[in-house]
Amino acid sequence: MADAPVAPATSPSAASEGKAPRTERGRKTLRAILDAAAVEFGERGFHDASVSGITRRAGVALGSFYTYFDSKDAVFRALVRDMSDQVRDRVAPAIRAAPDQIAAERAGLREFVAFVRGHKEIYRIIDEAEFVDPASFKLHYATTAERIAARLKAGAERGEIRSDVSEVHAWAIMGMNVFLGLRYGVWEEDLTLDTIADTVAEMLARGLAP
Amino acid sequence: MADAPVAPATSPSAASEGKAPRTERGRKTLRAILDAAAVEFGERGFHDASVSGITRRAGVALGSFYTYFDSKDAVFRALVRDMSDQVRDRVAPAIRAAPDQIAAERAGLREFVAFVRGHKEIYRIIDEAEFVDPASFKLHYATTAERIAARLKAGAERGEIRSDVSEVHAWAIMGMNVFLGLRYGVWEEDLTLDTIADTVAEMLARGLAP
Repeated sequence: MADAPVAPATSPSAASEGKAPRTERGRKTLRAILDAAAVEFGERGFHDASVSGITRRAGVALGSFYTYFDSKDAVFRALVRDMSDQVRDRVAPAIRAAPDQIAAERAGLREFVAFVRGHKEIYRIIDEAEFVDPASFKLHYATTAERIAARLKAGAERGEIRSDVSEVHAWAIMGMNVFLGLRYGVWEEDLTLDTIADTVAEMLARGLAP
Repeated sequence: MADAPVAPATSPSAASEGKAPRTERGRKTLRAILDAAAVEFGERGFHDASVSGITRRAGVALGSFYTYFDSKDAVFRALVRDMSDQVRDRVAPAIRAAPDQIAAERAGLREFVAFVRGHKEIYRIIDEAEFVDPASFKLHYATTAERIAARLKAGAERGEIRSDVSEVHAWAIMGMNVFLGLRYGVWEEDLTLDTIADTVAEMLARGLAP
């Protein structure tokens, strides 16, 4: 099930200000543009990517692009936010379904690496944001770390992990996940998702025990 | 002592092929060019950076630059390697001096964040390598992970940490260190080095216990 192709939900607010789609058909076009932008920016990088390259890949007219976005910069910014949301939407249900906090961290890492394997361009896009749109880059990691810190705190309050979990633990976990995703998601798929997730979960189970 | 300014050692092989300096004075010029390149690339990014910007910052003639490097690409590539070496040279003595493997990991993280605080440009430079020079980017992280894996294995053989430490643990530790360096080295210095290092060491001491 984890690998079943599911069309990602698209927030109408992904469009530029005042350009949010109002119809289902409009939302589908917006989704097609964002998916095409992921491939275009991922393959060519921001500077070589073009709006016409995106519309060609999406199979939509140039006019449709400008119905929803003001510029190449605007669609790039929307794409970073969209990728961030897609990761959250992929890992959140697995985390919620987990029986305890360590199982939740295990599921979060497992689903993240699975997502990366299907979206290898995510690293190039988010990493390039550091240069093209530093505010989006910072927002992506700050938001992700806050989300991890909040769920660790909730786990601590339920007595499942140590009571002194902090922002340092959240950043440590995010860093592990990002680098394991790079190594075993983008570079080489030479270990199973379960091997990676079990190894880390085993370390965290003891390292974060109450 | 950790914050005393020490001139980094410069490998003569940092220069382009056939251009290695043969004199102490030459090595000093090469060092000055690399330090100036770190500031120029860090502030302006690869595309906007220029050889003349580097030589101006270094206070050397344009001809001196070409005595050691073939191009802007060549000095960028040398800089990524040099930054990688500088990190290693900064953390290695602290790791060697540590009484056991957990103390070594603690010291490695502490010295890395300390280094980042004094060289905030390192993230922009290594991250930009992903786009400008992907081979250098990959080499930097692959080499660092191998170094961590080797020292974990040695620690396991001495019985100081669990015997099943693997490449997954090495990548997890590298990821933690890189992201903690970004958050508490580059973004904001709102926690002491010891607080960060103690938090992670405490988690690893239990998580990697034999």
